[in-house]
Amino acid sequence: MARKPTIADVARHAGVSRATVSFALNDRPGIAEDTKARVLAAAADLGWTPSRQARALSLGKAGAFGLVLTREPEQIGADLFFPAFIAGVESVIGQRGDGLMVHVTTPEQEQGVYERLAAERQVDGVLLTDLRHDDPRPPLMRRLGLPAVVVGQPEWGGGLPTVSLDDEPAYSAAVRRLADLGHRRIAHVEGPREFRHAHRRRLAWEQALRELGLPEGPVLPGGFSAEGGARATRELLALDAPPTAIVYGNDLAAMAGLSVAQELGVPVPERLSVVGYDDAPLTRYSYPPLSSARADARGWGEAAASALDAVLAGDEGAAHVALPPAEFIPRASIGPAPRD
Amino acid sequence: MARKPTIADVARHAGVSRATVSFALNDRPGIAEDTKARVLAAAADLGWTPSRQARALSLGKAGAFGLVLTREPEQIGADLFFPAFIAGVESVIGQRGDGLMVHVTTPEQEQGVYERLAAERQVDGVLLTDLRHDDPRPPLMRRLGLPAVVVGQPEWGGGLPTVSLDDEPAYSAAVRRLADLGHRRIAHVEGPREFRHAHRRRLAWEQALRELGLPEGPVLPGGFSAEGGARATRELLALDAPPTAIVYGNDLAAMAGLSVAQELGVPVPERLSVVGYDDAPLTRYSYPPLSSARADARGWGEAAASALDAVLAGDEGAAHVALPPAEFIPRASIGPAPRD
Repeated sequence: MARKPTIADVARHAGVSRATVSFALNDRPGIAEDTKARVLAAAADLGWTPSRQARALSLGKAGAFGLVLTREPEQIGADLFFPAFIAGVESVIGQRGDGLMVHVTTPEQEQGVYERLAAERQVDGVLLTDLRHDDPRPPLMRRLGLPAVVVGQPEWGGGLPTVSLDDEPAYSAAVRRLADLGHRRIAHVEGPREFRHAHRRRLAWEQALRELGLPEGPVLPGGFSAEGGARATRELLALDAPPTAIVYGNDLAAMAGLSVAQELGVPVPERLSVVGYDDAPLTRYSYPPLSSARADARGWGEAAASALDAVLAGDEGAAHVALPPAEFIPRASIGPAPRD
Repeated sequence: MARKPTIADVARHAGVSRATVSFALNDRPGIAEDTKARVLAAAADLGWTPSRQARALSLGKAGAFGLVLTREPEQIGADLFFPAFIAGVESVIGQRGDGLMVHVTTPEQEQGVYERLAAERQVDGVLLTDLRHDDPRPPLMRRLGLPAVVVGQPEWGGGLPTVSLDDEPAYSAAVRRLADLGHRRIAHVEGPREFRHAHRRRLAWEQALRELGLPEGPVLPGGFSAEGGARATRELLALDAPPTAIVYGNDLAAMAGLSVAQELGVPVPERLSVVGYDDAPLTRYSYPPLSSARADARGWGEAAASALDAVLAGDEGAAHVALPPAEFIPRASIGPAPRD
């Protein structure tokens, strides 16, 4: 069987560049009519059918998904979740030549960014992460007619399709394991309160302690950042009765906590047990290796991109996805409570 | 003085949504002619001038820069350079509402991705990173007429504007410091050879050893990844005469090396000194804190975005930028060579 013709063959046959074929196919200005005719004739001669990607283009698809992060640029720069999540999204959209339009914005400018994405048709749809309490985005997406998938719990989506991953079981398992190891003072370094997932993790930690009849150790803000995790850890270790275990809102804060504790001469896990959340790829290379909760950010990104594909294909039912819950992964950063 | 009218005022005055104002302004299909007339009349009534952003839109700007990463998605998922670089880019373009179109692709599909970005005018220009030997991209950008800035050494740009940051001084300083500390077996775990910056780092390490009259310790591939860094470290430490210091191609590989060495019972820095490259924000929270080279990925992203702005403004001369060279940052991961 003869090799299937490619866009390069069409370009050669028509005596133009591949870019010109693409321009001609997509009816862009700046291509002379006779060039366009030559390209179409060459395509017909060779029996060339535009690929799925080219067809999508001629149907007016933007060929991109949008991800608008309403966070400080610094927060993105050290984050361990988003690179893995983006890698997952790209593993779905990259092979067909699509891109991910990333915006980093402020709460004040957020609405304008989405309006522009919709008005300019820069993206075919968006992935909504970092859901907040009374998040304005689900109703905004509806108003703008912008296809969207919420990355978070079903009840956060305001009716939009959601791709969820339950973090509660991992927090409960972590607190139970720490209690089994004899810990009684288990602190929490929480993420930004405006984020529903950060709040949910705090509640999961609280409820696990309540069920075990243990006092709620102190809660300090960690902002999901290394700096925040380091600061909170220093404060906690300076208490008269410092915690013997700390459960952090994410891995980044926990890795900073791990480092700060050891620098302060508090050995991990002999004097302090440390638990993170996300199980970022780097986590297992902390020292000692960090106990965490495997949330599979990459698989989540893949699932979210596939769900948005389902929405765009008109199959919104297939876009409601519940991934397996996060699993607690104990590693050397936890151990028996010190006997004082 | 009266408050300057905003797009929201125009929308209210015209009795339409902000999105409709945006649609009308940008002459998108699907807006009735009388609606468009009403919007323009409202804008005139209020004396509203479209913002720079809206003007850019009406001039047909895409409102996005492109970043095409020809790497495996897994490599992106754990990378410490790109999130910081992207944060820097976003700190320039995010405040004006622009986005960064991120593509992750394969060497085979790379050309097609750039052709599409150009043909579809999805971006106003691109940032070229990870320059390779005989990189096809500079001539491709010229052929496509796609404005571009090369993130790398001036001689890699094929005449395109470059934003460079010299990594040699940091490697020389690291090797010299290790030699001063008595190290004689200094190994290198290199990045992917196809990348010019990885190759350049290896050469810098080699030359520093040569200048000091020290033997070239073994070189192992580390792939710029945690897994590669871990594997190479295990191999090096299993040698009959293992190195007493390892200089890695990047922080990710070095952090993995730090962890693996300690797990194997090789204390850092007592038996092994470890040096990374990038000085990623997380680096100072490894244990022990990692010696690295401050390459300021975030500042580099800012400079690259500003340089692309200069290119787009027709000022290509201002787009050739040499940032201050990377600086060696010694931390607790290096110490005197062990006396055997």
